[in-house]
Amino acid sequence: MTAHKPGLAPVMTAEEVNAFLKQVYPQLNEDFAAYEAVAVRPGGCTVRLNASERHLRPGNTVSGPSLFTLADIGGYVCVLSHIGREALSVTTNLNINFMRKAEAGPVTGECRILKLGRSLMVFDIDMTAGVDRHLVAHATGTYSIPPKRGAALG
Amino acid sequence: MTAHKPGLAPVMTAEEVNAFLKQVYPQLNEDFAAYEAVAVRPGGCTVRLNASERHLRPGNTVSGPSLFTLADIGGYVCVLSHIGREALSVTTNLNINFMRKAEAGPVTGECRILKLGRSLMVFDIDMTAGVDRHLVAHATGTYSIPPKRGAALG
Amino acid sequence: MTAHKPGLAPVMTAEEVNAFLKQVYPQLNEDFAAYEAVAVRPGGCTVRLNASERHLRPGNTVSGPSLFTLADIGGYVCVLSHIGREALSVTTNLNINFMRKAEAGPVTGECRILKLGRSLMVFDIDMTAGVDRHLVAHATGTYSIPPKRGAALG
Amino acid sequence: MTAHKPGLAPVMTAEEVNAFLKQVYPQLNEDFAAYEAVAVRPGGCTVRLNASERHLRPGNTVSGPSLFTLADIGGYVCVLSHIGREALSVTTNLNINFMRKAEAGPVTGECRILKLGRSLMVFDIDMTAGVDRHLVAHATGTYSIPPKRGAALG
Repeated sequence: MTAHKPGLAPVMTAEEVNAFLKQVYPQLNEDFAAYEAVAVRPGGCTVRLNASERHLRPGNTVSGPSLFTLADIGGYVCVLSHIGREALSVTTNLNINFMRKAEAGPVTGECRILKLGRSLMVFDIDMTAGVDRHLVAHATGTYSIPPKRGAALG
Repeated sequence: MTAHKPGLAPVMTAEEVNAFLKQVYPQLNEDFAAYEAVAVRPGGCTVRLNASERHLRPGNTVSGPSLFTLADIGGYVCVLSHIGREALSVTTNLNINFMRKAEAGPVTGECRILKLGRSLMVFDIDMTAGVDRHLVAHATGTYSIPPKRGAALG
Repeated sequence: MTAHKPGLAPVMTAEEVNAFLKQVYPQLNEDFAAYEAVAVRPGGCTVRLNASERHLRPGNTVSGPSLFTLADIGGYVCVLSHIGREALSVTTNLNINFMRKAEAGPVTGECRILKLGRSLMVFDIDMTAGVDRHLVAHATGTYSIPPKRGAALG
Repeated sequence: MTAHKPGLAPVMTAEEVNAFLKQVYPQLNEDFAAYEAVAVRPGGCTVRLNASERHLRPGNTVSGPSLFTLADIGGYVCVLSHIGREALSVTTNLNINFMRKAEAGPVTGECRILKLGRSLMVFDIDMTAGVDRHLVAHATGTYSIPPKRGAALG
C-alpha cells in the first residue's frame, strides 16, 4: 500500500535534522540529548528515545510524557525533513495510546506521513521497545504548516 | 515488526464473522449490507465498505460517518474474530483523521490489533480507496471487553 | 471562563442553518431529518438527534455512528453559523469517547468553539440523553477552512 | 448539566493528593515541583503548571510535552482523589488539541470526570493561561483502573 503521495521525497538527512534541532532548541539540549532522528526516508522517518533513569516512572516504565515527546518529535522530523528548515510548523493535535510498559533503553519510533498537504501534515508513529520490540505506544498527530516562513517551533 | 503478541490467533473466519453480524444486527441489514469482513488473520483483519450513492456527500465523496462506521466495524471484527461470539464488547474511544476524498466504490480497511488485553482491545485501521489505493482516512480505537458473557453489541 | 475569542459572533440563526443543510444535502434528507440545529450562540451551538428505531443497536442503545454524526454536524454548525454559507469546510479529525448507553429519544449536543482561526476550527461537544440528561458521549474535532469559496461539504 | 454520576465524591483533598504525589514519585520531584493539585471537588479537580523557562520552547511558548504532562496529571488527580491511594491506574489514551501559545506563568487545568466506571475513568481538561485566561489547550483522556490494589503508577 502506498500511504503517501507519489514523489514525496526528503530534503534533509537525519544528520542535518539532528544538527538543526540542536541549533533551534539551544536551551533544551539537556532534555533533547536523549531524542534523535535515526533515519529519514520518502514518506517517513525513524526517531529514537534513549530512555534512562530520568525518563522512568515508578515501576521502571518509561513515562507517558517521554513517549508523547518522542511522538511529537517524530512528527516534527517528518515535517522538517520533507519541507525543510524554513518550516514554521506547530503541533495542533496528538492522540496517543499506551499499550505496554517500556523498559529503560532505546524506544524506537517508526513514523509514516499519512498526508502532506499545503497547510497540514498528518502522521502516525509505532513506538517499540525491549528485546522483543513489542509495541509500547502508538500515536497519530497533525502539524499545522503556516504559509509564512520564519523560525521553527516544535 | 511484530505489532501483536506472539500467539495471537483468530478463532473465527471472515465468513463466520459476516454470518454472525447478519444475525446479531437483524434490523441493520439494510445499512450493513455495504460493510463486510474480507479477511481475518493473526493480529488483524481486512474489512470493506462498498460505497454507493447513499454513502456520498456533496462533491461525491464518501461521508465521514460512513468511514467512521467502517473503522468501528473493523475494530469489532478484530475483537469478534480473536475472542469469539461471546465477546460482549463496546467501543469506548475512536479517533479518526480524514486525509483525502474517497470516491464511490470499495473502501478497504486494513486493521491491526495493537493490543489485546483482558479488558481492552486497541486497534488501528488504514482506509484506502480509488484506483491508486490512496490513504483516505486512518483511525485508532479502543474496545472495552467486559468480563461477563452475553449478546454482543457494536 | 471564556473559552472563545472576544467578539466571536454568529452570522446565521439556527433556522437559517437548518434551511441551508436541507438545501446542500438534498439526497441526505432522509438521514438528516433526525438531526437539527437547535440554537446558535456566540462561540457555540446546540444540536440534536431525535433518535428513533433506525439509530439503535441491539440492546436498544443509540449507535456509535449516529453519535459520531451528531458530533460531526455539531462542528459543521459551529463553522457555518460563525463564518457563513460560503464556508468550504471539511472535518479533518474527530475523537469521540462513548461513556454510557443512550436510549431512543432526543440526544442533545452542546458545542463549544475552542478555536476559530483562519484555517482551522476546533470544537468539543457534550452529548446528553435520557430523563437524567446523563453524559453519553463526548467528542473533540477539527474542521479545516480552506481559503477559497465554493460549495460546502460536511 | 450534570456531567457525572450523582454521588461522585472525593475521598482525598488537594493537599493530600500533593503529599501523595511527592511520596510516590521521589525521583521526579524536580520535574513535578512545577505541577500541583489546586482543588478537588465532586466530579472534578483543578491542577496547575507553574511554567518557567524550562517549560518553554523557542518563541517563549509553553511546550507541548509540558501541557501534555499537565493533562496527564489532571487525569491522575481525578482518579486518585475519587478512588483513593490504592488506585493502581495507568493512562491508556490521551488526545490533546493545542489552540494558542501559552506564555510563561501559571497554566490552569480545569478537569471534569466524564465517566468513573469500574475499570475506566474518562476525563477532559480545559487549559487556560495568560492575563485573559485564554484557552491554550484541551485534552480528553482515559485511565484504566485495574481491579487489584497496589502501588500507583502514572
